[in-house]
Amino acid sequence: MNEKKIMNQTIEKMLVHASVRDFKAEPLPAQTKDLLLKAAQSGASSNFIQAYSIIEVADVNLRREIAKISGSDAYVNQTGVFYVFVADWYRQAQILRAENKDVKALRNMEALTVAIVDTTIAAQNMTVAAESMGLGICYIGGIRNDTSKVAELLNLPELTLPLFGLTIGLPNSRNEVKPRLPKANILSVNGYNHESLTDLSTYNEQTAEYYANRSHHQKSTNWSQEMSDFLTNPRREDLTDFLKKQGFTLD
Amino acid sequence: MNEKKIMNQTIEKMLVHASVRDFKAEPLPAQTKDLLLKAAQSGASSNFIQAYSIIEVADVNLRREIAKISGSDAYVNQTGVFYVFVADWYRQAQILRAENKDVKALRNMEALTVAIVDTTIAAQNMTVAAESMGLGICYIGGIRNDTSKVAELLNLPELTLPLFGLTIGLPNSRNEVKPRLPKANILSVNGYNHESLTDLSTYNEQTAEYYANRSHHQKSTNWSQEMSDFLTNPRREDLTDFLKKQGFTLD
Repeated sequence: MNEKKIMNQTIEKMLVHASVRDFKAEPLPAQTKDLLLKAAQSGASSNFIQAYSIIEVADVNLRREIAKISGSDAYVNQTGVFYVFVADWYRQAQILRAENKDVKALRNMEALTVAIVDTTIAAQNMTVAAESMGLGICYIGGIRNDTSKVAELLNLPELTLPLFGLTIGLPNSRNEVKPRLPKANILSVNGYNHESLTDLSTYNEQTAEYYANRSHHQKSTNWSQEMSDFLTNPRREDLTDFLKKQGFTLD
Repeated sequence: MNEKKIMNQTIEKMLVHASVRDFKAEPLPAQTKDLLLKAAQSGASSNFIQAYSIIEVADVNLRREIAKISGSDAYVNQTGVFYVFVADWYRQAQILRAENKDVKALRNMEALTVAIVDTTIAAQNMTVAAESMGLGICYIGGIRNDTSKVAELLNLPELTLPLFGLTIGLPNSRNEVKPRLPKANILSVNGYNHESLTDLSTYNEQTAEYYANRSHHQKSTNWSQEMSDFLTNPRREDLTDFLKKQGFTLD
């Protein structure tokens, strides 16, 4: 059995994923959004907790404020729809409190972890569904540049974390697919391969070529260099304080 | 435009997702696994960090040990392939250290969060790809029942977290699709809907019917009751200690 024989339309679309940062200003039809939501909700959920909420930011001014925080103005303001995905234990808190039970189980690191995983599964399902319809997407992690402000703007209750935005629309232009890390760097068998980074030189050549020749924002760099530059200083150092304010004890 | 017109094969498959816990003991062909890995790697990645590793647990004894920890013996031991997905900053740590740079940026809560998101995007892409081929999957969060032991068994380095397992194979039997929370509970517009939980009664009726009538493990309960029972006590309280041992400061 070769790759051609097991290939299908779903996987074909996945393999050409590239984030879109240039959309037509055409709002998605309600039916399309309904189907995207159903796809998101169809994902697996740890012990069926469904620990996420999705907020459609339709108001133009509100969206502009969140776009500004995220530093992604162009493709958050001009798009088909913009969602904020929220890791969310507030529902369960209400259920427990209605029974006079302690909500301690919702506060620890494990609880936060499963909510982040649940939320991401839903978002990635929505992503794949959107791309299967010919739409483009971009995750907007930049909303965490000021998590407190985003939480305030969206009126978020305790035990929630605005994890990322997701902008979805008809692509105006598409970016080239970025070359991924070699299989040997990602996959190992029966244990972690501590030697997997001994040679990134081929990958750095590939990525240097990609960065030098892509249609937009060409630059002279490679993957290792990008990582080194990007990780010089810790990012978003207020996240722990925000989480504690939201009631996550992280213990 | 109605739902039928925008429906496609990709979304059709997503909407009937149910975790599979009963597989045929037929190892997946190498080409299938290669394609699943490519699909996983094709997902979006925050600032292209690709902060995950995937470990195929092929050794029968090793798999048995991890299955026992996870409490999912049947469908981890008898399956097509079993992977452990690892949130992983170790690659970047090596790059930074080769340049005598501090790895502080890899240790905080933000860094851990993006690695968990990246890892989950990859896993959900693999999931959708597997299901598009007619395979079944089950996430195995149970590996976090003893994260330290799993890390030891898989020889994991610092700045890694074994996040979950993913078991993939040909289904022997399939479960019914669980009814998801009503749209009004998941989706809101322009801000969090604090009233969204005022009426879970219809959903609790739906889920009571599901639990009472499903093919396996029938029980008398509903969603709120399940959540209340499940969340009586905090789970996996050693996760923070494990993360700190791994070098995550969570600050």
